[in-house]
Amino acid sequence: MTAALTGLAAALPASWPASLAPDRLEVIDVPTPYLVTDLDAVARRLDRFTAALPGVRAFYAMKCNPAPEILHTLRAGGASFEVASLGELRVLERLGADPAEVLYSNPVKPPAHIAAAYAAGLWRFSFDSPNELHKIAGHAPGSAVYLRLHVDDSASSFPLSRKFGAEPHEARELFTLARRLGLRPYGLTFHVGSQCATTAAWRRAIGLAGRVLAGLLDDGVRLEMLDLGGGFPARYTAGVPPIEDIGTTVRAAIAELLPYRPGLIAAEPGRHLVAEAAVLAAGVIGREVRAGQNWLFLDVGAYQGLMETIQLPSGWDFPVRSSVPGHGLVPELTFTVTGPSCDSSDTMFHGLALPATIDVGDVLYLGSAGAYTLSYASAFNGFPPPAPLFVGRSGGT
Amino acid sequence: MTAALTGLAAALPASWPASLAPDRLEVIDVPTPYLVTDLDAVARRLDRFTAALPGVRAFYAMKCNPAPEILHTLRAGGASFEVASLGELRVLERLGADPAEVLYSNPVKPPAHIAAAYAAGLWRFSFDSPNELHKIAGHAPGSAVYLRLHVDDSASSFPLSRKFGAEPHEARELFTLARRLGLRPYGLTFHVGSQCATTAAWRRAIGLAGRVLAGLLDDGVRLEMLDLGGGFPARYTAGVPPIEDIGTTVRAAIAELLPYRPGLIAAEPGRHLVAEAAVLAAGVIGREVRAGQNWLFLDVGAYQGLMETIQLPSGWDFPVRSSVPGHGLVPELTFTVTGPSCDSSDTMFHGLALPATIDVGDVLYLGSAGAYTLSYASAFNGFPPPAPLFVGRSGGT
Repeated sequence: MTAALTGLAAALPASWPASLAPDRLEVIDVPTPYLVTDLDAVARRLDRFTAALPGVRAFYAMKCNPAPEILHTLRAGGASFEVASLGELRVLERLGADPAEVLYSNPVKPPAHIAAAYAAGLWRFSFDSPNELHKIAGHAPGSAVYLRLHVDDSASSFPLSRKFGAEPHEARELFTLARRLGLRPYGLTFHVGSQCATTAAWRRAIGLAGRVLAGLLDDGVRLEMLDLGGGFPARYTAGVPPIEDIGTTVRAAIAELLPYRPGLIAAEPGRHLVAEAAVLAAGVIGREVRAGQNWLFLDVGAYQGLMETIQLPSGWDFPVRSSVPGHGLVPELTFTVTGPSCDSSDTMFHGLALPATIDVGDVLYLGSAGAYTLSYASAFNGFPPPAPLFVGRSGGT
Repeated sequence: MTAALTGLAAALPASWPASLAPDRLEVIDVPTPYLVTDLDAVARRLDRFTAALPGVRAFYAMKCNPAPEILHTLRAGGASFEVASLGELRVLERLGADPAEVLYSNPVKPPAHIAAAYAAGLWRFSFDSPNELHKIAGHAPGSAVYLRLHVDDSASSFPLSRKFGAEPHEARELFTLARRLGLRPYGLTFHVGSQCATTAAWRRAIGLAGRVLAGLLDDGVRLEMLDLGGGFPARYTAGVPPIEDIGTTVRAAIAELLPYRPGLIAAEPGRHLVAEAAVLAAGVIGREVRAGQNWLFLDVGAYQGLMETIQLPSGWDFPVRSSVPGHGLVPELTFTVTGPSCDSSDTMFHGLALPATIDVGDVLYLGSAGAYTLSYASAFNGFPPPAPLFVGRSGGT
């Protein structure tokens, strides 16, 4: 049966770029592990985002994948950038990006990073407390400041809990202080949480922002920016709202729920733009039976790039294919899939259905692997992170 | 009161090297974050380990901290090394170590790593399955093989679950296969689990190994090595058995529970040798109140080296000091301590008591930070890992 299936396999999920189909990757003469990104797919994702959210400027949240090739592609497509640190700004500067076009949206920043970003020409800083305003006023005098509001993020895969965000009722006092400190009241922002699963979360957050904007008007404060933050989802194995639906919701909410439309409507997509554009190829280095269960050992684990699989008790599912002929059509077994290190915590998938014959030397292809993979990677146990590869014409190496 | 307390602070825990006392670190003119290791303290830990376990050869588990300065210090002190990958072996080769002195104890290895290690002169490989024996026989013919036994690791902080280890009843069949494949039956090993809290775990494991050795004798197989594995604890905030107590237990168990004494008794200490010899200095970059709780933001987080704080639901406690005068004597508050990134998962400590006045610009010193910190570190969110610094005469930079 296997011979008859050579070259056949179950259809790829819609999120998987045809350019990264397993049979096309198999001819890449690079040892596993590698992470291959289709830069054209990244460019298409940005185009689609822009079409779905007309009038919204995309500031790519580069924390999710700061590969220069991706930054270059997104910049060429018209995106700007959001940074979490001075280190990220320095990467952008090396690429020739203008710091004046960059948002610094980490609400709590090292004073030295604020000063150096200001010296480089960055002029917009987020904040969520009086302390941060004092820091900004001291190290970036006269800068524009935008307030991070605490919103309900319970619909996301990674709620941000209470780490960030001011309460809406604190906004007026905070902007009054900002003015007193010589800062420029500039905007509002929020974060519905990473990989947000419902469009309603944006409507609620925009409604909240509208009420804050109205309150500020009473103080004579008219803001220049509403930043919708991140959380725009990518497709993995579960359904997520298409960006067009989010766009429809956001446009309606902006039209209906704001007392005025700020001059700049910003958003900080990260995962949404890059996750689906990349495939991680992991080599099978061992197959064992442990206490009656099938275990598969890969040459890339949680600490080489699959961190998100161990951050949540519920795990993290990637669409999976393999080099086994007829993948998805041949008989399967379920496997515990673990990394190459000696750590037991380095175990990524439980109960994953894979071809029953998969074995050492085969390759597992994880789709939607472009976000929050290499950015978390270390060389734990001496195993290097996946090698970054790029295909596509949009500025590839 | 503060002025009168300048220079005073609560006594350091016994595990904290005097050379790394906070008042001595404050004169180091290096920006935070940094990880400073006293190489003399590393050398002393190895000496004490050797004295407590006479006749036991230490093979340092370099996965826990592969800094060349530490490897050099331990090698000068008479230790050899245990590697988890070819990448680690390459680091040792660059330092001039002889691969023939190195143990390769990761039970599931990439075939290409086996072949390259064998070509470099490494001749001892662990295994725990028929599949791994076939791999070794194919890529490192004639090599010596030692069997990883599954033992009870429930007394450790990081039990290794079922990822590794053969059942004792499988040993005879496995060594029979090893001989049939032309391999040299060489030894037994086990792992009681990282940071093991009870000496009884070693006695139980050695007793189990003794029963396996006796069974193998019936097949005419007499092994050359018993490798006690790792798990030797370091002091953090909870009490752990001193190495002398572990040594007493191990010596008694070896004398009483083995049918014969193999020529080589090995051990793979990692954390035990290096954790207490280093202090991590983290700068305070923010202090906020969130929903009535005090939050402290540091310039190093879970993804820059404090991974172990988020691996276990119970967290991980380091002994903590700060640059606040009179630390431990002045009034305290409890804090949620979080990292510099935008991730909420990047939160390291909950309910940590710290001086009430601690604020931006102060430094938090985490003791016993020499193990499993930099080895897990990435530059997530653009924040670099702590800079490695070394003091002491034993081969420092």
